[in-house]
Amino acid sequence: MEKGRLEAFSDGVLAIIITIMVLELKVPHGDGWDVLFQQWPVFLSYVLSFVYVGIYWNNHHHFLHAAEKINGSVLWANLNLLFWLSLMPVTTGWMGENHFARLPVQVYGFVLLMCAIAWRPLQYYLIAANGGRESLLAQAVGGDWKGKLAVTMYLLGILLALVAPWVSCLLYATVAAIWFIPDRRIESRILK
Amino acid sequence: MEKGRLEAFSDGVLAIIITIMVLELKVPHGDGWDVLFQQWPVFLSYVLSFVYVGIYWNNHHHFLHAAEKINGSVLWANLNLLFWLSLMPVTTGWMGENHFARLPVQVYGFVLLMCAIAWRPLQYYLIAANGGRESLLAQAVGGDWKGKLAVTMYLLGILLALVAPWVSCLLYATVAAIWFIPDRRIESRILK
Amino acid sequence: MEKGRLEAFSDGVLAIIITIMVLELKVPHGDGWDVLFQQWPVFLSYVLSFVYVGIYWNNHHHFLHAAEKINGSVLWANLNLLFWLSLMPVTTGWMGENHFARLPVQVYGFVLLMCAIAWRPLQYYLIAANGGRESLLAQAVGGDWKGKLAVTMYLLGILLALVAPWVSCLLYATVAAIWFIPDRRIESRILK
Amino acid sequence: MEKGRLEAFSDGVLAIIITIMVLELKVPHGDGWDVLFQQWPVFLSYVLSFVYVGIYWNNHHHFLHAAEKINGSVLWANLNLLFWLSLMPVTTGWMGENHFARLPVQVYGFVLLMCAIAWRPLQYYLIAANGGRESLLAQAVGGDWKGKLAVTMYLLGILLALVAPWVSCLLYATVAAIWFIPDRRIESRILK
Repeated sequence: MEKGRLEAFSDGVLAIIITIMVLELKVPHGDGWDVLFQQWPVFLSYVLSFVYVGIYWNNHHHFLHAAEKINGSVLWANLNLLFWLSLMPVTTGWMGENHFARLPVQVYGFVLLMCAIAWRPLQYYLIAANGGRESLLAQAVGGDWKGKLAVTMYLLGILLALVAPWVSCLLYATVAAIWFIPDRRIESRILK
Repeated sequence: MEKGRLEAFSDGVLAIIITIMVLELKVPHGDGWDVLFQQWPVFLSYVLSFVYVGIYWNNHHHFLHAAEKINGSVLWANLNLLFWLSLMPVTTGWMGENHFARLPVQVYGFVLLMCAIAWRPLQYYLIAANGGRESLLAQAVGGDWKGKLAVTMYLLGILLALVAPWVSCLLYATVAAIWFIPDRRIESRILK
Repeated sequence: MEKGRLEAFSDGVLAIIITIMVLELKVPHGDGWDVLFQQWPVFLSYVLSFVYVGIYWNNHHHFLHAAEKINGSVLWANLNLLFWLSLMPVTTGWMGENHFARLPVQVYGFVLLMCAIAWRPLQYYLIAANGGRESLLAQAVGGDWKGKLAVTMYLLGILLALVAPWVSCLLYATVAAIWFIPDRRIESRILK
Repeated sequence: MEKGRLEAFSDGVLAIIITIMVLELKVPHGDGWDVLFQQWPVFLSYVLSFVYVGIYWNNHHHFLHAAEKINGSVLWANLNLLFWLSLMPVTTGWMGENHFARLPVQVYGFVLLMCAIAWRPLQYYLIAANGGRESLLAQAVGGDWKGKLAVTMYLLGILLALVAPWVSCLLYATVAAIWFIPDRRIESRILK
């Protein structure tokens, strides 16, 4: 039951983040193809962020489903993750409105990096509260190569944005594609 | 229980979409009848979109109620539907602010079309996860003539907007009227 | 369970309406007492609308708690109520920004009136789905003098705004005060 | 079950407040470090308010978890708390945009003060509805020194802002740090 309320609150925040991002898609002034096409960088960055928040929601869904107990540390680790995810709408909008310029792409990558990092204490405290290293949950997460790869690629993206912001965006999109498949580690070992 | 969280998340997003649309109803400057009447195209498009999101919520409600199991594919098909629905507020506002001009009406019809198309994989994966073609759920959906009619009328509306955007709006409103009655196919065969 | 999802969706919309209204409280430009005091009409109208949405949420809470079954008609009657409530933020903002001028006060009263009217089919269909006229629910609602009084006072307020908008606001506030106490009719006869 | 709906509604409002605040982080115009750094006061005030709302959500979570019964008085005491919390986004934005000037810092402190005060009737009515002074809940809350300290420091902060708004902000941050640890009084005595 406690877990239920944590899930409900997280769902609420994630649902709002996902739709606040659409608010960045401003109603264009004018009714022609030109004003519509001017929206494409904002639209593209919206799609990327929508997929990212969708990924986090899916993994959050699977991960908490596999857990049984939560405590105060989990609550705060969860709020920490939500905090960094809540920065996605504004950085998404900033990146889109500046047509994927250097600094906005770096800041966007930084927020992605912090979300990935914020996932780890949540994972840690949830595992600790649910049987520790020997638990099924811990074994299912395993080496977490996807998490480590993501962090590496975000760092690379932040660096590469200095010379080629578009390559950084491709890297971010690649990470999203890798994560797109819901966390089968957990799904396969525990849920079934 | 898993289904419950999917429903809660979808409810959250749909509730936010329905009310973000009202944000497009900007507080008018001035306090006379003239500024109030200037709002009528924005208000009309709001009413149409409110009814559409209401229809999707109702059908989503009935459809998921009839289902029992979900999986990763269902989660993503659902997010795909929510993505297209999340574009409704901005296209609603664009259509209203441009007094139902040609292109905005076409883009609005395109988003309606994509929502209708996005419904199909959700339907497909839900049926697949709940017994397949022979299941009660599949039989209840049946030939889905309403879905096919809607797609046809959206396409017609997008074409006709080139010459008469108002006819397109009438077509969209007609589809809404046809769907207005909740999905009795499911309600009659399964729920009762 | 069906009822649960209707409640969750309504809670979502009501929670969003209540907080969208606070968005109308714009961050003032400048940091002095003068810019703060310029906000008072917007703030006052926010307080009034907050109390109104709070009242609707409370009564909705009590009323649905006392009900057991819902159907398609209830879903749409509920969406109809939510539609009119969703117009409260923009009319609240309009009334506040125009310092309670005649027409905005009338339009605000009209939305209050429509909310009160929209409550009736919801009440009707819920009672019909839960045993009809002889049911405990119907007896608990009784003559519904508060609902009739509210409609009368809204109509009076809309008329009086032509000569004295402030008196209309007092009438609206009086209705809110009368409704402030949660629907004890239901609470006393059924819940206890 | 009644309690569940109160929790869901509160979660909804709190989740929206927490993310409306991020809307105050406007997408900056320009793509350089200078426009990014101009955001720091807005960002800092966002972080502070995010932590505060997080604290209220955590304590609300623990407190209602420990309670069993609610009634009409609890519903309204809860709405009162949500009302004051709903003022946090606009005061947060005002404080940030004016770089922690005197009056905005005082108004922000006033809203914090009112939230702290609004907590007390909620606590009172919940304890009254769940066994009164002799109950485990009442004993767990105990002398509530943290609540009294917070009120004192908010008052001090409002006064000190006349000469040194930055000291007030430090005081507010200190209170947040003290409350950061979830309400262990309840967690330790009842939940375990």
